[in-house]
Amino acid sequence: MLQGNAIIGQSGGPTGVINASLCGIIQACQGQKVIRRTLGMRFGIEGFMQGDVIDLGREKPETIEALRTTPSSALGSCRHKIKDADFPRILEMLKKFDVRYYFLIGGNDTMDTIHRVEAYCRTQGYELIGVGVPKTVDNDLCGTDHTPGFGSAGRYVAMSVKQAGMLARDMKRVDQYVIFQTVGRSAGWLPAAAALAKTAEDDAPHIILLPERPFDRERFLADVKRCHDRYGWCSVVCGEGVTYADGTPVSASSVTDKFSNVEFGAMGGTSAAMMLHQMIKTAYGWRGEFQVCESLQMCAADRVHPGDIEEAYACGRRAVELAANGVSGVMVSIVRESNDPYRWSLGTAPLADVALGAKPMPDAYINGEGNFVTAACLEYLRPLVGPLPEYVRLSGTPA
Amino acid sequence: MLQGNAIIGQSGGPTGVINASLCGIIQACQGQKVIRRTLGMRFGIEGFMQGDVIDLGREKPETIEALRTTPSSALGSCRHKIKDADFPRILEMLKKFDVRYYFLIGGNDTMDTIHRVEAYCRTQGYELIGVGVPKTVDNDLCGTDHTPGFGSAGRYVAMSVKQAGMLARDMKRVDQYVIFQTVGRSAGWLPAAAALAKTAEDDAPHIILLPERPFDRERFLADVKRCHDRYGWCSVVCGEGVTYADGTPVSASSVTDKFSNVEFGAMGGTSAAMMLHQMIKTAYGWRGEFQVCESLQMCAADRVHPGDIEEAYACGRRAVELAANGVSGVMVSIVRESNDPYRWSLGTAPLADVALGAKPMPDAYINGEGNFVTAACLEYLRPLVGPLPEYVRLSGTPA
Repeated sequence: MLQGNAIIGQSGGPTGVINASLCGIIQACQGQKVIRRTLGMRFGIEGFMQGDVIDLGREKPETIEALRTTPSSALGSCRHKIKDADFPRILEMLKKFDVRYYFLIGGNDTMDTIHRVEAYCRTQGYELIGVGVPKTVDNDLCGTDHTPGFGSAGRYVAMSVKQAGMLARDMKRVDQYVIFQTVGRSAGWLPAAAALAKTAEDDAPHIILLPERPFDRERFLADVKRCHDRYGWCSVVCGEGVTYADGTPVSASSVTDKFSNVEFGAMGGTSAAMMLHQMIKTAYGWRGEFQVCESLQMCAADRVHPGDIEEAYACGRRAVELAANGVSGVMVSIVRESNDPYRWSLGTAPLADVALGAKPMPDAYINGEGNFVTAACLEYLRPLVGPLPEYVRLSGTPA
Repeated sequence: MLQGNAIIGQSGGPTGVINASLCGIIQACQGQKVIRRTLGMRFGIEGFMQGDVIDLGREKPETIEALRTTPSSALGSCRHKIKDADFPRILEMLKKFDVRYYFLIGGNDTMDTIHRVEAYCRTQGYELIGVGVPKTVDNDLCGTDHTPGFGSAGRYVAMSVKQAGMLARDMKRVDQYVIFQTVGRSAGWLPAAAALAKTAEDDAPHIILLPERPFDRERFLADVKRCHDRYGWCSVVCGEGVTYADGTPVSASSVTDKFSNVEFGAMGGTSAAMMLHQMIKTAYGWRGEFQVCESLQMCAADRVHPGDIEEAYACGRRAVELAANGVSGVMVSIVRESNDPYRWSLGTAPLADVALGAKPMPDAYINGEGNFVTAACLEYLRPLVGPLPEYVRLSGTPA
């Protein structure tokens, strides 16, 4: 068997459970005879190319164990898109640190990185085993039922929309609407997760805008009006990446003349909700608010779903077991065995397939009007987000 | 003793624990012989004037008990500023529902309402006992050490800034700053609470902008640059109501020409953070994000501090005990007996004094540069927000 050191990197945006995967990989590496030392890349492949490598064997075991519940990317992350020119330097570093086992935790760009580095090394006669561990709050990774990190971010979204919906209901004499924006540019999994907040017909959310469906201003305003007529208030959840039919982002210009020259899109992707807010305010003159939490939904360690931690950790361990058995060029995947009771197992997906692109929500998960999710979608989401807290409502018998 | 019904109302913005006060009042009323029925105003004094009154005695005891951990304002709330013309109608309703005990949970406007209604009734020869229960996430109420609801909102802020700070640190190769905006127009207690997130020198937050100190664009940008030079990233927390020395809100216009015609102030108070974002981006060209959570920090029941629930509940009970003993015209207050260990007791403050105005942070709680809080402030805040979760950091020994 191939003997050498292992190296681990984290890539792209953090999640609430990405460190649980890191913990799983480190602990599993330490139990493998073929792996001598367990190293970490600081700031992903970018730091690695600069030789910024740490010895994870020098960390206290209790620090490694505590990674399970520590948010963000403990190794530091990057968004470096790998270029052909990078390969010689990467190989040089792999040789320098005697790396034979190569693990990255990330999304499709990250899987592409592993895939290409591994292929390059093969052409250079350097034996390297590379295995990917999935991660993204957006849940748009191909080859797996879902990604570790998504359930917990979905939980943050659903909790926020549920609590803010109760507030909006109780404050409807003051404010008439609330808009919550989620991250996730091209797939609507996170805004969809908000639907789990709804247990009664008048509960938030009332309208969910998904990047998978074109945004139509008139239809949206009519939907808002209908909810307002029915409930006295309206809850809207939108993905940051919603676009008009012609592909123009809702976040950019063209809604009112006032904003037409403002590059909201470049300001952090926070503007779809603001534009919707502006539309409602202009059309109806109501008071309301928009909420843009940005990366808070990617690091809320106190709102993670325990099952998500468990899966993230298991994916990390499995990556090492596969690698130690000589398996290379795959990403660990999660296979859903059943919904109720929820059961899952681990599988693998070829890196080449995962690297190809993002996975949008299927049509069967979106209602005909394109403004909410279906029962099938809720069934898919429920075990990932976990049960939400139950709050009471007064029956309100007139005196 | 005066016999009759009691009525309870909730006013202004919700908190995570305002229903715990409601629970305390209801449960205490049900144990008082002088109180026949316990009624609730739907949507505060505004609903009351319309006769929207419910019988809280008809709610299941387990529903009342569960109010302790249910966010938002279960009775519904309003922001009605009482007018002299309202008094006859209010008296008519008090008589109709035979109300002799009158409890409102709210801030200074609410205390003013109780005070004036009670005074009017006296001039009309209608005997009414009115007691106020403090509430506001802003903590700007006079006559009490702090307000129920503040500690939990402060906890939401501190948790968010802590988690997002870890993320920003780990992502500093991608994004260089993060700006978190809190609610609280005229007092900086909530942005100040973010300081509890800091345990190491490079932890978030680095800069806290308080409404109590004038905003200076050049000084702010220099502060941001200094943090960026030192840490590679920068965390800023700002109160929504920060203003320039001449009183102009940071949230409004005049930062760049682009925005000069846009009424951000009227759009929900979400714009101070966006303006700061725009300033940094324009000055340094960095990438970064701003986070505007708005009412989410007022209703996050899963992030309440248990001590805050306990105090909110106790304030509610005490209001009833006072009223049943004939005490009127006061608000229940919290008296801090000691900091470490934290001990508190209940007192009272005359409604007339509380109604007068908002309580800003004292000078001793703000550092000389006006961009952070002092150790004395942290000592004040710590027991209210409670201990924050501890997360680990890798020691990062080079390989």
